[in-house]
Amino acid sequence: MSVPEAIVLVSGGLDSCVSLAWAHRQGWGIRTLHVSYGQRTEKREEQAFHEIADHYEVPAERRLRISIECLRLIGGSSLIDRSMPVEAAELDRGALPTTYVPFRNTHLLAAAASWAEVCRADRIVIGAVYEDSSGYPDCRPAYYEAFQALLDVAAPGANLQVVTPLLHRTKGQIVRLGRSLDAPLDRTWSCYQATERACGVCDSCALRLKGFREEGIPDPIPYS
Amino acid sequence: MSVPEAIVLVSGGLDSCVSLAWAHRQGWGIRTLHVSYGQRTEKREEQAFHEIADHYEVPAERRLRISIECLRLIGGSSLIDRSMPVEAAELDRGALPTTYVPFRNTHLLAAAASWAEVCRADRIVIGAVYEDSSGYPDCRPAYYEAFQALLDVAAPGANLQVVTPLLHRTKGQIVRLGRSLDAPLDRTWSCYQATERACGVCDSCALRLKGFREEGIPDPIPYS
Repeated sequence: MSVPEAIVLVSGGLDSCVSLAWAHRQGWGIRTLHVSYGQRTEKREEQAFHEIADHYEVPAERRLRISIECLRLIGGSSLIDRSMPVEAAELDRGALPTTYVPFRNTHLLAAAASWAEVCRADRIVIGAVYEDSSGYPDCRPAYYEAFQALLDVAAPGANLQVVTPLLHRTKGQIVRLGRSLDAPLDRTWSCYQATERACGVCDSCALRLKGFREEGIPDPIPYS
Repeated sequence: MSVPEAIVLVSGGLDSCVSLAWAHRQGWGIRTLHVSYGQRTEKREEQAFHEIADHYEVPAERRLRISIECLRLIGGSSLIDRSMPVEAAELDRGALPTTYVPFRNTHLLAAAASWAEVCRADRIVIGAVYEDSSGYPDCRPAYYEAFQALLDVAAPGANLQVVTPLLHRTKGQIVRLGRSLDAPLDRTWSCYQATERACGVCDSCALRLKGFREEGIPDPIPYS
């Protein structure tokens, strides 16, 4: 039986780094895909993507960086539209935060699926988290079941599977898994708004800090 | 009850023109979305898009033209990769033709869905054809059922519906419908490889010509 070949979506954040570490530990062939879509911290995330891929010695021809211009044009999210402020974390706010990018993960997965079809990869790994999340609808388990069903009809015969190793883990469990896999957590970047020192107050920082706190260890990246 | 607001995907070809004519006849609010993805006939299709939108007096702020760069980067199709020849039509070839762009329609629908969420549209209209098609998997009815299921979980509460008015029509029936709706068929462009006079031999030309032949009328666009 041949070794699975995975396209791993690597934003450069904690979750995608641990997902890559996990796929690497499975012994799968690894290709890394980084997607820019006009988000505020685009350049900083891209730097993190390359440092993480360097750590795993992913060769240049197995890294793809693409830009999804249409999300920037369409807007509708404070991650993209710099005239909308990024809210401070309010993890039980009920409503969707302004950082939600409408239908974003479908664009990311579609890019991964197109690449997978061309290079004959059979896994797409995405670090979506449901338990400790901002409540985005495209981080729900039902979303990934529906996307898998779409893959089954859109790429019949490709046996392409979406894998979500973190979906049901808490942020503390993700930090623990990352440490147990020796993932380069110090290379990751999660903050939604800053690029030198993480702000510590946006949803993404708050969730990340919660993970390290639960594990009782310090977060290795700098905060303001 | 409010009037539905539709995002209509308009490539500039026969099928998308008739789909727009159909949505217009329903009395729906219309927004038109044109997607470039590095295809050979990109500029000619964009011209057709604008001429068709002009015909229906779609104002500029309701037209969106986006470019999906990643499909060009990923390649894998003779529509994009100019080193691969576009095959002559062989409509019962069994295998997928080289013009298939891996997972393309998912990118198009994701763009439409993102725009729909931002402008609160509740219909996405796409001129996919199953009966007389090149056998692309993302033109099958099961694909649209799966995408609808994805929308239901990814945009809960948006009541966003994918509408495929042509899915079960033959090309002859599409030409007839277009004529009965006074659609500007002379403004459309379907050819996969030429931009001045249609080649008449690619899959797209062959299917289109079949439609006009079935209806017993001449195709109004120029052929080599």
